[in-house]
Amino acid sequence: MIRHAVTLSVGDELLAGETLDTHGRTIAASLSARGCRVLQHRVLGDDVSDIAAAIVAATVGADLVVITGGLGPTLDDVSREALAEAMNESLVEDPASRMHLDQWYAGRGRVMPVGNVRQALRPTSATCIENPNGTAPGLRARVGAALVVVLPGPPREMRPMLEGVLNDELSGESRPTIVVRAFGIGESDAAERIEPLMRRDARLPVATTVSQSLLSARIRGNVPDDRDSIETLAVQVETAWHPFVFGRDDVTLSMALGAELKKAGHTIATAESCTGGLVAAMLTEVPGSSGWYPGGWVTYENTRKVEDLGVDAELIEQDGAVSRSVVSAMADGARRRAGSDYGVSISGVAGPDGGSADKPVGTVWIAVADEAGIDARCFCFSGDRPVVRDRAANTALQLTRLRLRGDDSDLLWQRDARS
Amino acid sequence: MIRHAVTLSVGDELLAGETLDTHGRTIAASLSARGCRVLQHRVLGDDVSDIAAAIVAATVGADLVVITGGLGPTLDDVSREALAEAMNESLVEDPASRMHLDQWYAGRGRVMPVGNVRQALRPTSATCIENPNGTAPGLRARVGAALVVVLPGPPREMRPMLEGVLNDELSGESRPTIVVRAFGIGESDAAERIEPLMRRDARLPVATTVSQSLLSARIRGNVPDDRDSIETLAVQVETAWHPFVFGRDDVTLSMALGAELKKAGHTIATAESCTGGLVAAMLTEVPGSSGWYPGGWVTYENTRKVEDLGVDAELIEQDGAVSRSVVSAMADGARRRAGSDYGVSISGVAGPDGGSADKPVGTVWIAVADEAGIDARCFCFSGDRPVVRDRAANTALQLTRLRLRGDDSDLLWQRDARS
Repeated sequence: MIRHAVTLSVGDELLAGETLDTHGRTIAASLSARGCRVLQHRVLGDDVSDIAAAIVAATVGADLVVITGGLGPTLDDVSREALAEAMNESLVEDPASRMHLDQWYAGRGRVMPVGNVRQALRPTSATCIENPNGTAPGLRARVGAALVVVLPGPPREMRPMLEGVLNDELSGESRPTIVVRAFGIGESDAAERIEPLMRRDARLPVATTVSQSLLSARIRGNVPDDRDSIETLAVQVETAWHPFVFGRDDVTLSMALGAELKKAGHTIATAESCTGGLVAAMLTEVPGSSGWYPGGWVTYENTRKVEDLGVDAELIEQDGAVSRSVVSAMADGARRRAGSDYGVSISGVAGPDGGSADKPVGTVWIAVADEAGIDARCFCFSGDRPVVRDRAANTALQLTRLRLRGDDSDLLWQRDARS
Repeated sequence: MIRHAVTLSVGDELLAGETLDTHGRTIAASLSARGCRVLQHRVLGDDVSDIAAAIVAATVGADLVVITGGLGPTLDDVSREALAEAMNESLVEDPASRMHLDQWYAGRGRVMPVGNVRQALRPTSATCIENPNGTAPGLRARVGAALVVVLPGPPREMRPMLEGVLNDELSGESRPTIVVRAFGIGESDAAERIEPLMRRDARLPVATTVSQSLLSARIRGNVPDDRDSIETLAVQVETAWHPFVFGRDDVTLSMALGAELKKAGHTIATAESCTGGLVAAMLTEVPGSSGWYPGGWVTYENTRKVEDLGVDAELIEQDGAVSRSVVSAMADGARRRAGSDYGVSISGVAGPDGGSADKPVGTVWIAVADEAGIDARCFCFSGDRPVVRDRAANTALQLTRLRLRGDDSDLLWQRDARS
């Protein structure tokens, strides 16, 4: 039974800080969902000895070792050599893989570069894992008591191969987990609200994390029978964090808002200035968003606010673009022009330039307009340009979601909060 | 002298696959730029023994060990305890840190939760590193021959503290590096074009990587005097990859396009369907983009294409939204309505739904319109929804950039490429 795993990502470019390693997380999430705990994740360079040593060390405590990277055709791809060294075996050519390679190139009317034949090599007792989306097969072998799997780096190739291995190797038995997602309260406030649940001596302790301003509470059972217990805990967290909880597990704020709009048969249009299209992009990330999102405007310069959304030029002259009056006119204009039920608008100072004593960098007005009226609020987001834009976009989605639910709670970073 | 480092990211949520570890990369990039090589990066859970063991192991081969995470106020934050264990010391309260903590809460009119006083603890012989953006100070200590530094997890807090440590500890002596950035050719094609430069026995081998479809060639010198040699190599790569190279190091496609528009005194408007605001968001990521980007439209449903951009409804009826005629009308409509020099438009099938035998998922038309005319091309992007949107957005930027430069080269994924 596979209960513990160690994962390794291979690539000089990772240690040079060139590329972001995402496999550590992707594989950890897949394993966790199937009840296998990751003990450790390592990032190594393209060095045969380093990789071989890490494989050997990993097989001591783990039942499964997953390595990604280093299976390409270039001379710095040495994961095959490293696995062979860890196994104390030679590399031999796998006939089926060689044939598949030849066919891949022939089918594209291309000549295989001579060096690429290395991709058909494997340690003597290892087997190849077919790669449906690329040329390099993966490798699978026993090292000590552990199953060792080497997969290609490119995510599109790695993912189906990983799922294939996990489907074969991991039984359905898993550790039930629920992650509660929220936005709009601070981490300390959130933690204080569920403090008794977070004690380390609790049988099933709840852990909180913040990532890109989104708050999560992870509740994990130990055995399948814990399903009811973690459901109870999840409901307690959702109650304590109400109304800022927008969903569980893989649900995003956009998906949550989209589901609410779809349920009500409503539509929404967007009018963005400083977020420059981020909110529109987040909404359209959701498959099926065409059912509730007709479109929006990126009115980056003031002329566009006037011409596209019908904002009164004098209002901009008088109050400035970053003001209650202008952001309200933007939300209302978007709603009317698109003929949608809701309009959401954002106008602020993302930085680094554009701030003033009155309206420092991070000052952002956000408004939601509907048939009943317009709710416009001013926020002060800390952080640099990308952070301000990201927080403003998420706040706009949450503000809209709360409006749909008839809730007027104050949100984190709101200036002049009423409570 | 600090030449080698090991980095550790701490957090159960990382090993559970909840959160993506970005510190490994951020710190590696900072260290590489200052001539310090990262030997290994590890991701560990919130476990005192595991972290302590990893610290001790790291100090064997490295001059510098950087640990992030586990300095929060909750019970699962155990990096202080782990460092103390690795050093075989006790934890004592640091008076200055305790005072700073008390003042932080008092200044916000809040009562410090009792548990938070743990954040002022440090091993006896360690010192605290001030945190300008949060409550938890960092820690700095000697373990064996290595300098060990523990920093908070939140990027906004970690980054200035890291820079402070590196400024103090690392001399200006560095390994000069140039990274050449390109988009629009495949990795194999790109590698073949510079094959002689990539040989491992070259004195300064060039390494290529692909990340999110963006291509990079990394050229690193060994000593400051290699500056001229790597410049020569970089120019060779740029020549071999022309015209797909858009810049070096931290330059993004948006920045490159923006710089060209700014230089020519030109402006651009966007009209997006399936990319839903991504291109606008990418353009406005660039500080100062208001100088060349007045705004754009997200015409997600067809009515918006007709009403906002003046696309002939009959064209959509006849040819469908994903067609040469419609995407051309969108680009031209955006250009005219915004009064800009250029208009760029995107209309396609991002998936998972919406595909047909004729226009499968991944079929995207992209057009660039200017005074001289309209260049519209059809692309077939492989991948799922987010990948299709991302590739389409980057392709739109590169197509526009090439148009500005009077270049009509075919791009990767282009259907009916002429060469």
